[in-house]
Amino acid sequence: MTALRCLPGVGPKSAQRMAFHLLEKDRDGARALAAALEDALTAIGLCAHCRMLAEQDVCPICADKTRDGSRLCIVETPADVIAVEDSAAYRGLYFVLMGRLSPLDGIGPEELGVGLFKDRLVGGDISEIILATSATVEGEATAAYLGRLAAEQDVVATRIAHGVPMGGELEYVDSSTLSLAISARTKLPAD
Amino acid sequence: MTALRCLPGVGPKSAQRMAFHLLEKDRDGARALAAALEDALTAIGLCAHCRMLAEQDVCPICADKTRDGSRLCIVETPADVIAVEDSAAYRGLYFVLMGRLSPLDGIGPEELGVGLFKDRLVGGDISEIILATSATVEGEATAAYLGRLAAEQDVVATRIAHGVPMGGELEYVDSSTLSLAISARTKLPAD
Repeated sequence: MTALRCLPGVGPKSAQRMAFHLLEKDRDGARALAAALEDALTAIGLCAHCRMLAEQDVCPICADKTRDGSRLCIVETPADVIAVEDSAAYRGLYFVLMGRLSPLDGIGPEELGVGLFKDRLVGGDISEIILATSATVEGEATAAYLGRLAAEQDVVATRIAHGVPMGGELEYVDSSTLSLAISARTKLPAD
Repeated sequence: MTALRCLPGVGPKSAQRMAFHLLEKDRDGARALAAALEDALTAIGLCAHCRMLAEQDVCPICADKTRDGSRLCIVETPADVIAVEDSAAYRGLYFVLMGRLSPLDGIGPEELGVGLFKDRLVGGDISEIILATSATVEGEATAAYLGRLAAEQDVVATRIAHGVPMGGELEYVDSSTLSLAISARTKLPAD
């Protein structure tokens, strides 16, 4: 029962309900869940190129030869890779940090796989890194740090755009985003 | 009772509940509400300079001599003016369109006060217009149209930034915003 509380969003009450359900009504389900967890834990590791969760040594995205190998999109989590893939706006490769710089939590460059990241830059295939870390203080710090590493290797570093989201009415946008959107305004192309 | 349904978010049930409450328990309140509405309708009109709702001929923002008269922020609604003011990122003047171009709903340039807008541009005080219309198809069309009018008068037109909102984790951003944020990425300053 306590073990179920390791699931995100599951508190004492939910854990108790789940435990009783599995034991009273669905012992087969519980057995299948245990086996699936066991399989996943042994089969799924990190991709050797991009640190994405993968069943093979190299994930399907890194293994796909049709993708643009000159661009590297830096994201914080595997879920971000899925989000960018769903947007269908990007056909390059990824690098998953598995977190962001946060000295207070003991997360430094080593924990983010910066050694592997440097190896990718030195390899020479990459001409642009796209920093898609989150728009938080720690995300910005991580982006700035990786941007400097890229500059040392003469690789162009770009940052995804921040501002008012699509379809957004100003009235419903928080004031710090609005303030950023005004200061980062761009000139309209004269036509 | 039907009259109460003109309030936004009030359906038949809520209108009935409000009507019975006012008639049974709060006749004074109903009288005060009627008087307040009457007063507001006679006292509040549109500012002669910016079309913001105002009690005087000229709204407090337009009347404020300490503001930067060379910048004009174009918004769709009075609520947008309040939102931009709350962001504290802007000290110029405003122009309120009271809508956006929408030919299907019969909203053309005249309904948006484009005549008055042109007069402001010709006046010569304005050196930049900041197009803060919403990030919708109609908002973009409105921005493009007003941008062309500004170009004709040699006034710089800028558009507020669009992209991932502040504090946004990529995982929770919709895919069209993410796609836009990737295509509108900016180069990091080399330092």
